[in-house]
Amino acid sequence: MPDETFLTELGQQLRVDSVRCSASAGSGHPTSSMSAADLIAVLLSEHLRYDVAEPHDPNNDHLIFSKGHASPLLYAALKAMGAIDDDELLTFRRFGSRLEGHPTPRLPWVDVASGSLGQGLPIGVGLALAGRRLDRLPYHVWVLCGDSEMAEGSMWEAFEHAGFEHLDNLTAIIDVNRLGQRGETMHGWDLRAYSDRARACGWHAIEIDGHDVGAIDDAYADALATADRPTVIVARTHKGRGVKAVDDAEGAHGKPVPDAEEAVRELGGERNLAVAVTKPESRGTPHRFEPQAVPWPRYDVGGDPVATRKAYGEALAALGATRPDVVALDGEVSNSTHAEIFRDAHPERFFEMYIAEQQMVAAAVGMQVRDWVPFASTFAAFLSRAYDFVRMAAISRADIRLCGSHAGVAIGEDGPSQMALEDFASLRAVHGSAVLHPSDPNQTAALVAAMADRPGISYLRTSRGAMPTLYGPDERFAIGGARVVRGGDDVTLAGCGVTVHEALKAAERLEADGIHARVLDLYSIKPIDADVLHAAADETGAIVVAEDHWPEGGLGEAVLSALAESGAQVPVVRLAVSDMPGSGEPEELLHAAGIDADAIARAATRLVGAPETAGRAR
Amino acid sequence: MPDETFLTELGQQLRVDSVRCSASAGSGHPTSSMSAADLIAVLLSEHLRYDVAEPHDPNNDHLIFSKGHASPLLYAALKAMGAIDDDELLTFRRFGSRLEGHPTPRLPWVDVASGSLGQGLPIGVGLALAGRRLDRLPYHVWVLCGDSEMAEGSMWEAFEHAGFEHLDNLTAIIDVNRLGQRGETMHGWDLRAYSDRARACGWHAIEIDGHDVGAIDDAYADALATADRPTVIVARTHKGRGVKAVDDAEGAHGKPVPDAEEAVRELGGERNLAVAVTKPESRGTPHRFEPQAVPWPRYDVGGDPVATRKAYGEALAALGATRPDVVALDGEVSNSTHAEIFRDAHPERFFEMYIAEQQMVAAAVGMQVRDWVPFASTFAAFLSRAYDFVRMAAISRADIRLCGSHAGVAIGEDGPSQMALEDFASLRAVHGSAVLHPSDPNQTAALVAAMADRPGISYLRTSRGAMPTLYGPDERFAIGGARVVRGGDDVTLAGCGVTVHEALKAAERLEADGIHARVLDLYSIKPIDADVLHAAADETGAIVVAEDHWPEGGLGEAVLSALAESGAQVPVVRLAVSDMPGSGEPEELLHAAGIDADAIARAATRLVGAPETAGRAR
Repeated sequence: MPDETFLTELGQQLRVDSVRCSASAGSGHPTSSMSAADLIAVLLSEHLRYDVAEPHDPNNDHLIFSKGHASPLLYAALKAMGAIDDDELLTFRRFGSRLEGHPTPRLPWVDVASGSLGQGLPIGVGLALAGRRLDRLPYHVWVLCGDSEMAEGSMWEAFEHAGFEHLDNLTAIIDVNRLGQRGETMHGWDLRAYSDRARACGWHAIEIDGHDVGAIDDAYADALATADRPTVIVARTHKGRGVKAVDDAEGAHGKPVPDAEEAVRELGGERNLAVAVTKPESRGTPHRFEPQAVPWPRYDVGGDPVATRKAYGEALAALGATRPDVVALDGEVSNSTHAEIFRDAHPERFFEMYIAEQQMVAAAVGMQVRDWVPFASTFAAFLSRAYDFVRMAAISRADIRLCGSHAGVAIGEDGPSQMALEDFASLRAVHGSAVLHPSDPNQTAALVAAMADRPGISYLRTSRGAMPTLYGPDERFAIGGARVVRGGDDVTLAGCGVTVHEALKAAERLEADGIHARVLDLYSIKPIDADVLHAAADETGAIVVAEDHWPEGGLGEAVLSALAESGAQVPVVRLAVSDMPGSGEPEELLHAAGIDADAIARAATRLVGAPETAGRAR
Repeated sequence: MPDETFLTELGQQLRVDSVRCSASAGSGHPTSSMSAADLIAVLLSEHLRYDVAEPHDPNNDHLIFSKGHASPLLYAALKAMGAIDDDELLTFRRFGSRLEGHPTPRLPWVDVASGSLGQGLPIGVGLALAGRRLDRLPYHVWVLCGDSEMAEGSMWEAFEHAGFEHLDNLTAIIDVNRLGQRGETMHGWDLRAYSDRARACGWHAIEIDGHDVGAIDDAYADALATADRPTVIVARTHKGRGVKAVDDAEGAHGKPVPDAEEAVRELGGERNLAVAVTKPESRGTPHRFEPQAVPWPRYDVGGDPVATRKAYGEALAALGATRPDVVALDGEVSNSTHAEIFRDAHPERFFEMYIAEQQMVAAAVGMQVRDWVPFASTFAAFLSRAYDFVRMAAISRADIRLCGSHAGVAIGEDGPSQMALEDFASLRAVHGSAVLHPSDPNQTAALVAAMADRPGISYLRTSRGAMPTLYGPDERFAIGGARVVRGGDDVTLAGCGVTVHEALKAAERLEADGIHARVLDLYSIKPIDADVLHAAADETGAIVVAEDHWPEGGLGEAVLSALAESGAQVPVVRLAVSDMPGSGEPEELLHAAGIDADAIARAATRLVGAPETAGRAR
């Protein structure tokens, strides 16, 4: 039987400290913290199993604030748990403080960044999958959700997936404080609106008064005792609870309470309660899969053409054999991305995420929290569905690998909805990312291996169509490198993926005209190999860059950036997809887009043959 | 009582034509078409109200193929309706044909592009909202959905929103053929999994055998007779129905049937049935709101600082008065984006979309189908949630306007999850987009007006903090333009938004050192004003570009692109946010990121004072 007085007092302390740190910052979300204070007080005191001194203990439960703006509550809880002191609490939102406006893993007790709503629960699904199927440890995943964020479809991807997977090691707590940023939510205090939907997704749903510490305690116990399905606790709460000026009041979102001193008085004053969070009973070690010795895939120069997506699947399966920490996720297209080769080799480490790309990327982020090495794949076009999740993964300092197949007009008949002509641009603009696009199966395999060891977000674009093998199986390819595929000093032709092959054809034609073209394979678009580019600029004096991508933000601009960085002055002509493509055969579409061998050769001839046309034409 | 024989025959014809056009193309999705053939046959013959000769008649029903890969079925239906002939049908997926792999509005009978799953239903919600609240016409919106795409959270955003809005003019038809691309869906033929969730969202749900034409007919009649809530028809079907080799068979997705001739025989051979789709009974004209004469907002140079987000709201409200076709949507942050000013002025044309950015952008796309002029706003960071929808909107040739507020490290304390440091890059890489970022309230207002008249996707980034007014209220600003804010011939300092103000401060400091800096306000990042840039390059010989954005794909690379386009050779130093920011005051974060006046002045001094350091340093 818990000490209800202590729990109530602890809840009040969390409110007081939320008010205090927000007042000190002059900004923040105290009222969104106050609604959930009792929910968190009971969880910390009675049910969480967590070693505060060892935040990376694999047996720890995980607590994710999906409503990341309730960071004052999180930091107040960390103080009560003895993780931070009161002085640090009052650095909230200050320059240099690790207590940021929204939580990030700069704090060792925070698994992932939140602050873009609707992401914490899908990440929690990933952690729960890791606990069940990878680590095979009994840790529990608790996710504090806001009611406003239930409007995000990604939350329902999580509900559906967790229900389907029977994740009884996952509990979602919905803080139904009725009020969003600018007014009431769709459902107000209609708790049933949430629980009916959750039950329809196969969850156990409990409706409670979120300020009744006894009811909260019972609900958590019920959640832990529920087998075979996840539990959602739908808790009716008051935003700003306990301070009359803001209690259940509109217009009080995202700002300090009007009179912090008076509010603290009203809440019963400052307290200094310490909550001794119970350490996990389990002292298990995470499950480890057995490594196997398998041959690395090798492709022969001059052999049958191979699609790089096929090489991705083969390399990933081989990598998974030697690296038992590698796991794969796919968005219901594993027969196209060829992630199915991994699935067949390592079924226990393969996760079918269905057509829910947000949940797929979130699950990868959750799994890497537990040090697994996830590769997530779908058509490149559909990774754009999870762009916000990738952006946030960078803020989470997450190490994840993404593979997008079937990109570019070179896919042919399926048309522009499947072409991902924006993937280089959008994924280059993710902090710390690598953006890779191989032209050959041996190169693909080498990059897959390199991605496994790379921190941060790594993205690999693979191609639909089979292409000739350019490189021997023993050549090495590093992220950040490039390849001179063909020598020549009159002009440089640079590309990646299919445009390397087009550039090679163009170089042959130019050779017939007496123009010796150098061909660069810029398979690493970010980071890009500046040395190879500078050498090409110096030694050939003119560069044509061709890419199967829109003109903005892709390979062409990456080349310009690298050259500008060092002040190199060289004419650069960029060929890219400018008009909206339709369907057609790959060759037809490459030609129509002006990125095939014809176009490259023409551009090179103009640059070299008549240099004045490279000058400004205004 | 419908003629069941005719309906059955029509369904078979749609199957035959799906098989034929896919066989002719050598690719495509006939089996996903065959499952839904009876559903579409009954709809066309009995319930759709549509004038095939006048596809833009405002009284027409709308039929959206959310499962866009069932394009063979759509094209077979268009043939049966007399919209296209058999010769054109057989151009499916050929280069130049408007019968693309996935439907696009190159066909006048197609409202929006599909092919990225999970988008058709949320767009249908936008159309149904337009029918109910804007056009006020009784047209019905029918959306054919796949069962695989029900895993996309965006579908549940649509279910929730349509239920909340009681959209009884919307019917979703789920073609539950059990099989996704690589195997069974999560729920197989468990129709209740779908209908329970839909009912929990306030929908009327009907489960039927999707090959029983009588049951289908009854279900449609039931949907049309159901008041006050949308209806979903959950139809159990067979993928590949009617052809033994592929009927309910795995491994038959996304490819022609193995023996098309035999399949056509098995389906009873070719037919040439014509279906006379009933024209709409209603001949109403769409509701038009009354224009009002209101003053355009004016801000005085030297007056109180104004945030551009505030100017956005004020300009949009004024625009809405004179332009009764303008509508606004917001993602539950209208008190921050200031869309609430429009809401208060024009409540009938304001749509609260809650925290569901995908549904918000989809609704805007749906509304512009009916010629409304939507502006959709949220924090810039959260538009990344809808990136796939924006990408697809470009393929839909949609005219929508997006406003993202609170971007850049200049937001300060809220931290990186709210900073949208990738918005320029991601939105420049959308076909035909404009990307705008004003530095001043009068400029903001002018750009809001210009966006209303611009086809395609227009994006405006607004700022959180108030800034001084730089321009008089009568200055004109065109999309694609730029402004020389300060003259000078020694060096150019270019920026947009807050960095214009930092550049001005830097120019003052440089002046004290005898360096005359020109300051450019590149408020139109795409299209960019190449003339102003070339003049600056020629006349000042060196350019510093500063932006509150990651280094990739933003203003700096846009400048490099414009200069490279013409072969201009000028040193360009780019300042951008390179390290992951935390929380802090705006000035602290601008300084730490190296994009404030200090950093700009320092870069300019280095460029001008010691030109050799601008050279290659390897």
